[in-house]
Parts: sequence; C-alpha cells; structure tokens
Amino acid sequence: MKTNPGRFFEDYRIGEVIIHAVPRTVSGGERAMYHALYPARGALYSSDEFARASGLPAAPMDDLVAFHVVFGKTVPDISLNAVANLGYAEGRWLAPVWPGDTLRSESTVIGLKENSNGKSGNVYVRTKGINQHGQVVLEYVRWVMVRKNRMDAPAPEAVVPDLQKVVPAADLVIPKGLDFTAYDFSLAGEPHRWGDYAVGEKIDHVDGVTVEEAEHMVATRLWQNTAKVHFDATFREDGKRLIYGGHVISMARALSFNGLANAQMIVALNAGAHANPCHSGDTIKAWSEVLDRAETTAPGVGAIRLRLVAVKQGAEPFALKGADGKYLPEVLLDLDYWALMPM
Amino acid sequence: MKTNPGRFFEDYRIGEVIIHAVPRTVSGGERAMYHALYPARGALYSSDEFARASGLPAAPMDDLVAFHVVFGKTVPDISLNAVANLGYAEGRWLAPVWPGDTLRSESTVIGLKENSNGKSGNVYVRTKGINQHGQVVLEYVRWVMVRKNRMDAPAPEAVVPDLQKVVPAADLVIPKGLDFTAYDFSLAGEPHRWGDYAVGEKIDHVDGVTVEEAEHMVATRLWQNTAKVHFDATFREDGKRLIYGGHVISMARALSFNGLANAQMIVALNAGAHANPCHSGDTIKAWSEVLDRAETTAPGVGAIRLRLVAVKQGAEPFALKGADGKYLPEVLLDLDYWALMPM
Amino acid sequence: MKTNPGRFFEDYRIGEVIIHAVPRTVSGGERAMYHALYPARGALYSSDEFARASGLPAAPMDDLVAFHVVFGKTVPDISLNAVANLGYAEGRWLAPVWPGDTLRSESTVIGLKENSNGKSGNVYVRTKGINQHGQVVLEYVRWVMVRKNRMDAPAPEAVVPDLQKVVPAADLVIPKGLDFTAYDFSLAGEPHRWGDYAVGEKIDHVDGVTVEEAEHMVATRLWQNTAKVHFDATFREDGKRLIYGGHVISMARALSFNGLANAQMIVALNAGAHANPCHSGDTIKAWSEVLDRAETTAPGVGAIRLRLVAVKQGAEPFALKGADGKYLPEVLLDLDYWALMPM
Repeated sequence: MKTNPGRFFEDYRIGEVIIHAVPRTVSGGERAMYHALYPARGALYSSDEFARASGLPAAPMDDLVAFHVVFGKTVPDISLNAVANLGYAEGRWLAPVWPGDTLRSESTVIGLKENSNGKSGNVYVRTKGINQHGQVVLEYVRWVMVRKNRMDAPAPEAVVPDLQKVVPAADLVIPKGLDFTAYDFSLAGEPHRWGDYAVGEKIDHVDGVTVEEAEHMVATRLWQNTAKVHFDATFREDGKRLIYGGHVISMARALSFNGLANAQMIVALNAGAHANPCHSGDTIKAWSEVLDRAETTAPGVGAIRLRLVAVKQGAEPFALKGADGKYLPEVLLDLDYWALMPM
Repeated sequence: MKTNPGRFFEDYRIGEVIIHAVPRTVSGGERAMYHALYPARGALYSSDEFARASGLPAAPMDDLVAFHVVFGKTVPDISLNAVANLGYAEGRWLAPVWPGDTLRSESTVIGLKENSNGKSGNVYVRTKGINQHGQVVLEYVRWVMVRKNRMDAPAPEAVVPDLQKVVPAADLVIPKGLDFTAYDFSLAGEPHRWGDYAVGEKIDHVDGVTVEEAEHMVATRLWQNTAKVHFDATFREDGKRLIYGGHVISMARALSFNGLANAQMIVALNAGAHANPCHSGDTIKAWSEVLDRAETTAPGVGAIRLRLVAVKQGAEPFALKGADGKYLPEVLLDLDYWALMPM
Repeated sequence: MKTNPGRFFEDYRIGEVIIHAVPRTVSGGERAMYHALYPARGALYSSDEFARASGLPAAPMDDLVAFHVVFGKTVPDISLNAVANLGYAEGRWLAPVWPGDTLRSESTVIGLKENSNGKSGNVYVRTKGINQHGQVVLEYVRWVMVRKNRMDAPAPEAVVPDLQKVVPAADLVIPKGLDFTAYDFSLAGEPHRWGDYAVGEKIDHVDGVTVEEAEHMVATRLWQNTAKVHFDATFREDGKRLIYGGHVISMARALSFNGLANAQMIVALNAGAHANPCHSGDTIKAWSEVLDRAETTAPGVGAIRLRLVAVKQGAEPFALKGADGKYLPEVLLDLDYWALMPM
C-alpha cells in the first residue's frame, strides 16, 4: 500500500518528533491569493511603505498565512483520521515570514489519553513552523481526537500536558524593529488606538460574506491541506463538503477589520474552538470582545487580547453560548488571541 | 461605535480632501490573479519581452488593475451609503504601475447637489491614485447619489462641476518610452492596426463568459472593495449578490481582445454608465464602436476612442438603448475610453 | 470581420509554421494560483530549498504550468474549430521554466488527412514552447479533428506522421544539475523510491475533488485558453460548460501525489486521451499503473513510465475500458508519461 493511510491513535508515542512534508516557498503570489480570498485590509500586510514606516523592512506575509502554511503540513500526519479538532493553546508568532521564505513544519507529541470507550483518544502536539534559516517562526499546541485502528492496541499511559490558559503578555514576541510612533491612522483605516478599547467592550463587525465551494477549496489547497472532507462531495452521505476551520478563522479575522483595523498583527493564539461546522452557502459574520490589554517594550506598540467569534446567518447579536453552557448552533468559531496595536 | 458607518450626503464639504485607506503593494501575484479572473490577453501586459520591444522596461500592471486598486480604496468613504453610481469623467492614466509599486488613493469633493426630495444628493469627487514616489498614476472624476442620514440637515449650496464630455486627445499621457514601430502583430494576436479602424465601425466580440459568485467576490476583494452588496447574500431581500461594476468592466474589456487585440493600453476614461445590474449566472458578452481616432507624439502610436458595451444573454446584436432613449434591460455597461494602438 | 474565426481544415498546409500569440511572463503569482487550483504538493516545485538540495538553483515552475501556458496559446490557431482533440505524442520537457521567464509558442503542421465524409479532417502539429533566450523548453505533437468551412475545398494529399508510441528513455532530457543523492524522503512526503515500484503495479490514489465552475474557468483563463465551450453556458444546448481537458490532467496528476509523491518531474508525454467530458459537479479521482522503469545518467535519478487515469464518481476500482475495447463512461483521462524519481 503506497498511499498514506494516516496515523491512528495507537501510532503516536510521547516525545516523538514528526517531520511534516512538504516545505513551501511563499511569494507575492500567496499574498495576492490571500487578499483575494478574504477581505483582509490590515495596512501592515497590505503595503510595503506602511510596513517601512512601522520599522519593518517590508510588508511581511499575513500572520494567518504563516499559520495556515504551517498547519496544512500537519494534516496528513496528525488529523487525517481525526474525529474532532479539540483545541489550540500556547500559540506564538516568533518571527515575521517574508516573501521568498521557505517554511517547513514539525510536531512533537506532548500528550496522549485514550478515551474510556477504547475506540479513540486525544493526541496533543506542539507544532513548530521553521524557515530556511532554521528559525522558528510560529509554534502552537493543538489537540485532536483520533480514531484507533486496532481496537486491541493497549492504551498508553495517559499524559495530559499542563497548558497555559493564556499566553502571558510578557511572553509575546514583538517583531524586531516594530515601532508605531509614526503610525498613520488615516492610511490604516480607523482612528481607534489601543487606549480607546476597554476590557469587556464588544464590537459587532457588521459585514458578512456568503461563502462558496470554489473559494474554500482554493484556500484549503493553497495551504496544502489535503483532508478529504473539504474536497470530496461524495465522501459524506449528505453530499456536503466541510469547510476547513482555518477558512472561517481567516474570514472572521478579515471581517474584524471593521472596528479593529488597527489590531495589526496577531502575535499569540491563546485558545480556539471550532464550535459548529460551516458549509458553502453560509454567510459568515463576526464579533469581538476585548479580553485584556497590556503594554509592550516596543515604541508605541500595545497588546490587546481579543475574543473573535464567527457566526452564521440567523445568529443573534453577540451570540455565543446557550443556558446549557454549550455553543449556540449559529456559532462557528470562538478564538482567543493577542494582537499588536498602536498606542 | 467603532465600525465605519460610511459617510452620508450631509457629511461632505466642497474642497474637502479625503485620504483613503489602505495602501497596497502590488506584485506578480495580483497580475496572475487578474489574468485568471478575466480572459485578458493584451501582449503588453502579458509579456515582459513584448513590453521591452515596445520601449518599456517591463510589462506594467494591467491598466484596469490600477483602476480597481485606486477605486476600491474609495468605497468605504464615498459609496458605502450610495444609492447609485452615476458616472465617470476625465479619467486619465498618467504613469504605468509596476510590480512592487505601492498605491494609495485620495479624493477631493468637487461637487454637491441635494436632490429635490431632500433625502439624498449627488456627490462629485476627483480621485487620484498615487504611488510610493508621490507620483499620480491615475485620476478620474466619479459622481454618486448618496443618502442623507439626518433629513433635517440643510442643503449645501449646489455646486455641479463643469466636466469635459471627452478627454481631448492632446491631453492623453503616453507612457514614457512607448514605441510601437517594431510592433509584432503575430505575437500580439491580430493584424489590425490603428488605420484599419474606421470611425463608426462596430465590432461584435463574439465570446461570452458566464459569471460565478466565487469569481466576482474574489475579484472584488482583491481590490479591497468592501461594499456589502457584493458579498452578503442575506443583505438583500432577493438573496442575490450584486456584481461589482468593475468586474463587468474588466470582463468586457478582456473579451474585446477578440477584434481589438491591439488596443493595448487604456489611457483615458471619458464616460461610463453601469446600465443594469449583473448577477451570478449571467453570461457577459461585449461589443465596441469606434468613436474617434487621433495621432500621438509617440513613435508608431495612435489613439483610438472606443465605446465598449457589455451585454448579457438575450441581447440583440449591438443592443444599446430603446426607443425611449433608455438602456435596454440586457445592457450592463456603456464605457467610453481612449486606448493606444500601433499605427 | 476583425474577430478571429479560427482556422478550418482547408486552411492548413504541410510544413507551415504558425506563430502563436500571446507571449507570457510567469511569476510566483502563477505558481501560487496553480497550487491553489490543484492539490499539488511535489516538493521540488513547492520549495526553493528542496530544489536547491536537488541541484537546481530554485524551484522551477510546475511541469504542467509550462505545458498549459504553451498549449493555451495554440488554441486560437489550432483548436477553435476542432471537433475533437485526438491525441498527444512525443512530448518532452527540455528545460525548466523559472519565475520571470517569458514563454511563446509555435507550431509546425506535420500531418493532414481529410476524413472520408469530406466534412472534416485531422491536423497534426508539432508545438514548441520557447523562452526569452530562444531555448525550446517543451515540445509535443498533438492532433485534432477540425471542421472544413468550404466543403468543396479539395482534399490535401494525406500525410500522417510516423510518431513514436513512447519516448525512448534514452531521449529523456534531465534538467541540468539534477541530483537526487541527498533526497529527503521525509520532507518529500513518502518513503517509496524508484526501486519500490514494479512494472504492472497499480496504485489507487484514494483522494477525490469535486470540481466547480469557478475553478476550471479561473484555471483555463490563467493559461489564456479562450475556447468558448469552457466559459459560455449559453453556447451549448444543455447549458453545460465543458471542462478544459488540461484541468483534468492537472487535477489527476496532483491527486497522484498520494502514492507517487516522489514522481517529481514530468519529462515526457508519451500519449494521452481525453476519454469522456468532465463537467462541474463531477468528483475527480485517479489511479496509476507503472508501465516501465529506466535508469538515467543523473546521480540518484531514475525514470518511471506511468499511466495516469482520471475517473469520476461511480467508477469501479481501476476502471479503464469495457469488453468492447472502449473507454468506460466514468473514465475521463488516460495519460502515459515519464517522470523522474529518486533511486
């Protein structure tokens, strides 16, 4: 059998390092595709001149381009036989990715816990994205529920990693040279600065995008994510293709420009849940809540911790969870991240 | 309220200069996207070698890429609350845009006239696209009908700018170095030169393209045009997304290659009307009429003034207006422009 | 009549050389589009670093990007009035195409044979793709059945070229410098090397992609292929757009990564048949058969001859032909090619 059957729960070992295929060189082509797939308008990622005025040598690749490229490579080894993508933690962007950079990914298995039914288990991996200089540009922890193949395989000793609920502000890595003291709010699109956002404030981002099959497949392939459920309408009984959760992340993040235009760079992913599946024809909208604020050592640069919630048509304003504590059916995504903003 | 409500009629002042967000660096990525979205085949924009043989340092970005990038930035400030896009005038391409250039846009309010119903008014703006050297690469006048928000806001003094019906041939700006004396008609795709076109001649461009939701949204986002009507199927009662008028312009212009392959560069936009809305599933076709011809000072380069009409399925040959002087329902676009052609 | 009516059977002459419009400069933009349209994951085309470790200066453009760019240019001159695309032979990739290269195409008429019904005939052309240095990067023979326009045009003397059934292994051109002795199988995605494949072995590539109108039109335009049947839903009575056969080739080749990840570069096209039409909504899957193997003079580089078959939903495993010797209705493509693989 030459094709990849994917790994099953019993195939993972604590401490194992998995080298993921396939390395990828990114260019202005990937940037243009990203800006065509999502209404991304962050000035720092849109304009070399704006980036230079902010102390960077040029506009880096969008923060989520880095995430998707690194994540996509892990799919054949981590989530091909996954039942569910359970969570993210301790995600940090450690260095900008530039056009021309080549990224590869590797993951270390840091946790394993078989479910009581004996048919599946949770796998925790810490994934690193590494550029051509050997520099880690991004790291995050993800855990997924993976099916067992041999039901009689013995349960491994349960190891559940102790993960930070939130990346501490002191651990955020600010891109070298970043300086927002000469920030041009007119060119950036909104006047609101770090100090204008209060903890607990909620923002309805107003705009919506109805998503299409062609778009999410183009996006998902761009990141070389090969999971069958996103591409093959004959794979599921209902004939529906499931939209890659990262497509919803990028769509919601781009929609949040309207109200958070100056939340320029994502530097940490504290947590994330794909609350409900998204399908072609759904209209994605988004709202945010300010969870925290922190100063940084970079000139004029503040950090803001945000909850980003993606919802679909029919959602009430600021919809999140029901009385039972479960996500409402119209909620697609609940993401907790740190971004950098001019003070 | 942190999101952008857009401007209403009473928010504009004569002489006011509006700096539009977000600056944009363009690359070979945007070019590839443009050529994948439209059947664009103009040799000057397709081949660095052809451009060099025509006296340019390399292939510039397509003329309409420059237009869309500049136009898209104006939407959040000019047309978010527009009822109708009424017209264009005095458009001129002043310098080529090259891969790597960063464009920003600014608009000056040059006209205001409240409608007699007191509920809306016409806003006239002159928009400039400016590159990273501070050079104006494109300018045009656009006027839109915009809703009032406060019905009791007093009507401003009516100012209606005196606009040229047609950009005079003497005012056309020819890209520096352009020389068509060694023009290769075989590589360009057609043998017809400037002298082969007679004023009054009409050309049916024959080919048609049935348009899809995914395509027009990808295109519209690429230009960072954020108007809700293009993206959100829940926004209108009929559940239909309206296709950005610029998508129709680019589609018709690209289709006009078949019969006008040598009308290489658009250098002026004299007038334009989006006659009827276009929706996904419509099949766009195009025809052109030669309106005028003029010589230029550049070697081997003639100017040709063309009417470009986009129609949809069901249109009669050369359909334009009915006996009542109104556009026929199958007519989508009526555009009047100057292009450069080998003599 | 200024538009291109295309050529009819009686318009071709043996020995005639046709210069095709429009030359095209390719960049990282075309590469990103290609990787977004197809689940292409070949490491050599995905990563500059992987290509350098394989002795090349950087990642070349995908082999099939070169094919599509060269092929697309021939459509207005060769197949606009074609009834059927009958076959390919003697295809060879002679030099890599790099970002920044400009390609043009020319074809020589090498065969003509009128059909006995007097209404059409077969045209054989040898097409060359040529870069800006005048170097031939790709050549192949294609033959198509073309309609006659004037039924009374005399039949030309029948000339049917003597074509090789298979490009001999000794005639394969290996890119200068290619060296697989330090090949990294982990980064490439699979452990299987040249010696692991046996002649006669069949591989079901498992994955499937349901194709959409927007995707195949974007792809087909990217190659400046203008055939009406791909774009205009009003052109055919059934309202269906026909998917460009090259879209199926690229989709199947990309799907074959799963099982043939190390079949890195296509260097020859021995034969090919578009067995049945493909439409939007079809789910494309693929299987391969190992037809032959050969050593090469390049260090660590073996050649493998593969049959690549694309099928659609409903196909039995390894479906190809029925008892009558005809392709089964679910078979879309039967392609015979040579690829290079690490030994």
